[in-house]
Amino acid sequence: MAKEYVVGVDIGGTTSKIGVVDARGEVLVQSVIKTDVNVEAEEFIHTLAEAIKKLIDASGKDGQIRGVGVGAPNGNYYTGSIAFAPNLGWAAKRSVPFAKLLSAELDGMPVALTNDANAAAVGEMAYGVAKGKKHFIMITLGTGVGSGIVINGEVLYGSDGFAGELGHTIAVRHNGRACGCGRSGCLEAYCSATGVARTAREWLEMSEEPSLLREVDEITSKAVYDAAKSGDALAKRVFEYTGKILGTSLADFIAFSAPEAIVLFGGLARAKEFIYEPTLKAMNDNVLNLWKGKVELLFSQLKESDAAILGASALAWEL
Amino acid sequence: MAKEYVVGVDIGGTTSKIGVVDARGEVLVQSVIKTDVNVEAEEFIHTLAEAIKKLIDASGKDGQIRGVGVGAPNGNYYTGSIAFAPNLGWAAKRSVPFAKLLSAELDGMPVALTNDANAAAVGEMAYGVAKGKKHFIMITLGTGVGSGIVINGEVLYGSDGFAGELGHTIAVRHNGRACGCGRSGCLEAYCSATGVARTAREWLEMSEEPSLLREVDEITSKAVYDAAKSGDALAKRVFEYTGKILGTSLADFIAFSAPEAIVLFGGLARAKEFIYEPTLKAMNDNVLNLWKGKVELLFSQLKESDAAILGASALAWEL
Repeated sequence: MAKEYVVGVDIGGTTSKIGVVDARGEVLVQSVIKTDVNVEAEEFIHTLAEAIKKLIDASGKDGQIRGVGVGAPNGNYYTGSIAFAPNLGWAAKRSVPFAKLLSAELDGMPVALTNDANAAAVGEMAYGVAKGKKHFIMITLGTGVGSGIVINGEVLYGSDGFAGELGHTIAVRHNGRACGCGRSGCLEAYCSATGVARTAREWLEMSEEPSLLREVDEITSKAVYDAAKSGDALAKRVFEYTGKILGTSLADFIAFSAPEAIVLFGGLARAKEFIYEPTLKAMNDNVLNLWKGKVELLFSQLKESDAAILGASALAWEL
Repeated sequence: MAKEYVVGVDIGGTTSKIGVVDARGEVLVQSVIKTDVNVEAEEFIHTLAEAIKKLIDASGKDGQIRGVGVGAPNGNYYTGSIAFAPNLGWAAKRSVPFAKLLSAELDGMPVALTNDANAAAVGEMAYGVAKGKKHFIMITLGTGVGSGIVINGEVLYGSDGFAGELGHTIAVRHNGRACGCGRSGCLEAYCSATGVARTAREWLEMSEEPSLLREVDEITSKAVYDAAKSGDALAKRVFEYTGKILGTSLADFIAFSAPEAIVLFGGLARAKEFIYEPTLKAMNDNVLNLWKGKVELLFSQLKESDAAILGASALAWEL
């Protein structure tokens, strides 16, 4: 029987999503399991494999699955391993040969692995706003800032599989904020969901300016977004500041790979109404003349819950 | 007869170098002509073609030449054009279809064109310290700062042929120096030969510190180098400062393409004894942990006069 379906798996720090996907990018069935970070890797992978088998059964496509594509933090395409991923307890202090172990649990079914941002880029190229584009940069604005760089229609992996850590380029060289990576001034420290909340907290402390955020119990990026929606001036300026830093960094990324487009994805990208203009302006203000006004700034249109699965699944077609 | 030789041409703002090269990278014969920037492009290309023909005659390899590779500022590999190159009068305000015109002048001999930094990267990969490397970044430290990025053994051209303008990434975001490109804070404004001279001049004005450079008529990067060689403390600190800015930027470039090595090339790279340590230190101090101490910092070993010709000639083998 022709193998016309693939499985996409998105491993997150809290939950892992699984979907059976057809060649047009339709998610036939999907399920979610808890990402248990307090067990050994082998145990989690066993649980995941059981969930995958169950979902394949439910899809009625048993025997027609070509392979499994997995997107995970710190996933390495070359080695198939997840190594030193701070948010995944079972891979925080070691390198786990994830693809190999999962394949063994699935009776030898082929498994491909990459990091979550690269998977998102592949998904966007196959099914999203980057369809037909050969050169683009995907920036994922979530708890952290990740990136997937596509050159000539292929994800850039570099010499070691770790290329595209643009969230850890330095956006602020002097007195930059401490970043989770141990350095300071990283783009991620400013333009992630965490960074947005931090900017808001700092500004609220620095001034007496009235703001709806002063009524909020916990300042999160969602709270800042809600306040901005209600017209809060400080909250809106937080997004302007975030967009300005992001756009300035994007200008440098363009000088590297001369992409047709930058695609923004993830939680913070949903604040498009507040960050689009300042990001685009900073990007065009800071980019070399030859690219001014020429690089598109796009926002992912994929349904958030599908996007991660689709991106990971797209990898499996290459198996 | 087998076509086992190629011609390499390096177009500079002052002179253009031509060489006939064999497959092992030996320059059999070479010549230099003045780059006349005050005539029309067609006239310069005619003069260049005559010089190429004469050199081929002198080499005794007439009929055995596979093609001509040209490296030029703002040369575009995709289009074969030189466009808006500030230092080349005949291409300063227009786009010149250089490869096509030169090929016509050479009775249809194939001509490939790229920018000078990309040509240098190709030369370094074929004949220099990057031999055997598939992932590296070439930084040319001359009057300006250029770059050639190699990924999977191929030069990165991007969507439009202009990828790799790393000299125009922003090294200093606040109150950065004006750059020739019209923006400010570019890496080129600090880490080019011009940038080094400028740093020295600024520092001499800012303080009363004694320095050999105070005796010099014109402060050039060469003068700063000579002073440093003589033990001048200020001159040495100029190179330390230059290396620190360069290394900090290199750390960001590594996060993009995860190269095995960075290769420094050009006039300023000859000051290796003064810039190697501070550049390497800043690179490793600022790079993400996973790459600390893992990316080589190499200096081109190719003879300066040969390197440009070799790089350009290497392009012609693909014709």
